[in-house]
Amino acid sequence: MYIILVYDISLENEQGARVLNRIFKICKRYLTHIQNSVFEGELTPVLMEKLKIELKEFIRKNIDSVIIFEIPQNKKLKKHFWGKIDEKTSNFF
Amino acid sequence: MYIILVYDISLENEQGARVLNRIFKICKRYLTHIQNSVFEGELTPVLMEKLKIELKEFIRKNIDSVIIFEIPQNKKLKKHFWGKIDEKTSNFF
Repeated sequence: MYIILVYDISLENEQGARVLNRIFKICKRYLTHIQNSVFEGELTPVLMEKLKIELKEFIRKNIDSVIIFEIPQNKKLKKHFWGKIDEKTSNFF
Repeated sequence: MYIILVYDISLENEQGARVLNRIFKICKRYLTHIQNSVFEGELTPVLMEKLKIELKEFIRKNIDSVIIFEIPQNKKLKKHFWGKIDEKTSNFF
């Protein structure tokens, strides 16, 4: 399945920066970083579950937010870029 | 078409905050704000074009980035929330 992952990690207390750094590093191991707090990529259900377990270790339930959009199998997803384009972003039509 | 919009507005110079504020307000008129710099919602091609024209007035091509994921018509998009859930976010399966 193709997924888009976006996260919003609270930096209100001193833990925030450390959590943000860990979340970023974990996501980079599974997905392509395409913008500030946005990742995309193809994951098997097993990898998705592993990503979930790793992230949940750091996500603080009441203040951090991770949203995953799961794009149905082999469905075409059109992407539009307005402004600078990050070369790493894969273009799939 | 259903879209997910994510933006990354540079705050490096003094314009940044003003641009961010304008971009946020424009997006809120067309879409639902679901996370820090993430919006989602249903747009007609005409509304998409209008949104594009309005945003392009403020996006600074070389330093700001807006990415729009266009989900094919009536395709189911599964969403997973890890951490806090924003009630405004629509849940469509």
